[in-house]
Amino acid sequence: MSQRTAVDLNKSYLLLNHGPVTLVSSAAGARRNVMAASWAMPLDFDPPKVAVVIDRSTLTRELVEASGEFVLNIPSLRIAETVLRAGSVSGREGDKLAALKITTSPASAVGAPLVEGCLGWLECRVIPEPENQRKYDLFVAEVVAAWADPTVFSNGRWSFQEEGKRTIHYRAGGHFFATGDGFEV
Amino acid sequence: MSQRTAVDLNKSYLLLNHGPVTLVSSAAGARRNVMAASWAMPLDFDPPKVAVVIDRSTLTRELVEASGEFVLNIPSLRIAETVLRAGSVSGREGDKLAALKITTSPASAVGAPLVEGCLGWLECRVIPEPENQRKYDLFVAEVVAAWADPTVFSNGRWSFQEEGKRTIHYRAGGHFFATGDGFEV
Repeated sequence: MSQRTAVDLNKSYLLLNHGPVTLVSSAAGARRNVMAASWAMPLDFDPPKVAVVIDRSTLTRELVEASGEFVLNIPSLRIAETVLRAGSVSGREGDKLAALKITTSPASAVGAPLVEGCLGWLECRVIPEPENQRKYDLFVAEVVAAWADPTVFSNGRWSFQEEGKRTIHYRAGGHFFATGDGFEV
Repeated sequence: MSQRTAVDLNKSYLLLNHGPVTLVSSAAGARRNVMAASWAMPLDFDPPKVAVVIDRSTLTRELVEASGEFVLNIPSLRIAETVLRAGSVSGREGDKLAALKITTSPASAVGAPLVEGCLGWLECRVIPEPENQRKYDLFVAEVVAAWADPTVFSNGRWSFQEEGKRTIHYRAGGHFFATGDGFEV
């Protein structure tokens, strides 16, 4: 199981600030899903908010609209292949989590699950903005709980030591960048 | 002067897809400014759109609202210190570009300038969304022209060889990550 400690809500934007790819997990009734999303960013500090694009054709969209909730999971390099597949396969073709052998744990404040193998987790509650959703597939949400693997994120700061245990950034067509060296100016 | 070749509009989202920090440049009348923004992301492919958070307290906000235009410049590691200072100083205290010794070139379709020392440029025209601007400081814009340094971006693909000539990601407090190694799964 992933290691996980609570992140102060006012520091939760730091999980997402450097622009990593995310997995959006969702659940409604007995259905659940996960999809990849690069188009996610912080929107406010306190209370923390995020913005994420969820295409109208996806099962995730249906589950997020039904439940008003999702989790932004921040995957590690180690599960990059799962991220790619989660962005290529539709949950409408069957239980994508089972198909991709994704294991999850329950979240604390939302029904959507936390995806194992990730390094950070933002539990989000949608702030309904029907016009944004309709015109731009854009969802605004408040972060209501946040978690991180304490071996790579503590005191509001990412610190990557191992090759496989770092965040990743999506380019296109199965190509990613690892998050590289940290530096200070 | 930065090398620069046109990027096809339908590939322009690839400049921003991996979540680099940006510089937002703006101009209205005789005034101009530049600020750092990590909270920027693609919003659509074709026509390409972006979303970016521009705080209501900034001079950039005033110039973007007056002109309806801005440029998202994607800086290189080499100018990280300028990015930090552009995010720390207000343009209300005097011409920030002059103070930071930032040189610019004219854009092709908007009045805001292109910042030298960057690797990619997205010329953007605001799609007015007064509610998003007021409630979330969130601007939606259409990308009307895009450019990249052809030594690091061609055929819709970033390819970084030199240490100083790569994109960067902002953490907080003067700390950045370089964009790391590319890999394919």
